[in-house]
Amino acid sequence: MEKALAGLPGWTHEGDALTREFVFPSFRDALAWMVRAGFEAEALDHHPEWTNVYRTVRVRLNTHSAGGRVTALDVELAARLGRLASGMSALTSRA
Amino acid sequence: MEKALAGLPGWTHEGDALTREFVFPSFRDALAWMVRAGFEAEALDHHPEWTNVYRTVRVRLNTHSAGGRVTALDVELAARLGRLASGMSALTSRA
Amino acid sequence: MEKALAGLPGWTHEGDALTREFVFPSFRDALAWMVRAGFEAEALDHHPEWTNVYRTVRVRLNTHSAGGRVTALDVELAARLGRLASGMSALTSRA
Amino acid sequence: MEKALAGLPGWTHEGDALTREFVFPSFRDALAWMVRAGFEAEALDHHPEWTNVYRTVRVRLNTHSAGGRVTALDVELAARLGRLASGMSALTSRA
Repeated sequence: MEKALAGLPGWTHEGDALTREFVFPSFRDALAWMVRAGFEAEALDHHPEWTNVYRTVRVRLNTHSAGGRVTALDVELAARLGRLASGMSALTSRA
Repeated sequence: MEKALAGLPGWTHEGDALTREFVFPSFRDALAWMVRAGFEAEALDHHPEWTNVYRTVRVRLNTHSAGGRVTALDVELAARLGRLASGMSALTSRA
Repeated sequence: MEKALAGLPGWTHEGDALTREFVFPSFRDALAWMVRAGFEAEALDHHPEWTNVYRTVRVRLNTHSAGGRVTALDVELAARLGRLASGMSALTSRA
Repeated sequence: MEKALAGLPGWTHEGDALTREFVFPSFRDALAWMVRAGFEAEALDHHPEWTNVYRTVRVRLNTHSAGGRVTALDVELAARLGRLASGMSALTSRA
């Protein structure tokens, strides 16, 4: 797991979960990002516990079916969410 | 209007509307962008005619209440949508 | 196909596509419905051509990989979108 | 405030906030509802603290600028969110 975290800049292994707070320019951005991120959650059939307050989104990831531990699914979802919110945003149009 | 268009790279003044096609990396990105852009439409109380096919979104802007002409509202919405889809995406988190 | 259409109230077999216009109370409802419907499209890996103008969404379904004909995938997506917009809205909370 | 709460079935006045848990049929429904509800938050320029876990959304409303008390804005947002999730869902199409 330490190794997995090393590949997840910005995430913290806190208690039994991976956690991260994302800060966006606005509420509008935060909610649109949740929609984008929600597609990844559905694709993995693995869903975050996440809290939105205005322009922040706090994400907490672990796996209920594994007794609330962090599993490979959490690491994968964390990596995807991190990429979505990174400077190489997939939300940029080419046109 | 020619002057306004000069400030709107990527947009075409076609017939009685401003038009532009945005191409995103995926359907997921296209739809999340529509949510983000929809907030701008609501804020301006001015709404696009837009068509999504997979990872493209074709936008057509004019003002019904002005007889279907292009008005300052269309130019403002076009500018906002362009910024949202630009490389300086507002959807990038700072965290 | 006639049989399939009989199970799809509200849809029209027009040219080489299934089409339907949905009218919502507001732009906000229309766009939220597109998000909800977009999850079905992703789950089926089959995507609509759809146009939103204010509170209407016109949907056009066919299958590009089948030469633009209507296939079982279109029928399935049409059925799901119809259910989502029906009176038994899946968007109603139980709480 | 007691009077206001009487008009808000399902909401609890807990500590210094109005709280409610909404349970939807699926994650997809929960997230689409958040998009729909987010438009109301933007229209009021008043935003919830809300947590999504799979198909539930826990909402907590109070007013930071009023020292974290419950104000008329919270009551208005609570009423709107309640209506959106009620059986008379605004997300039902008429077509």
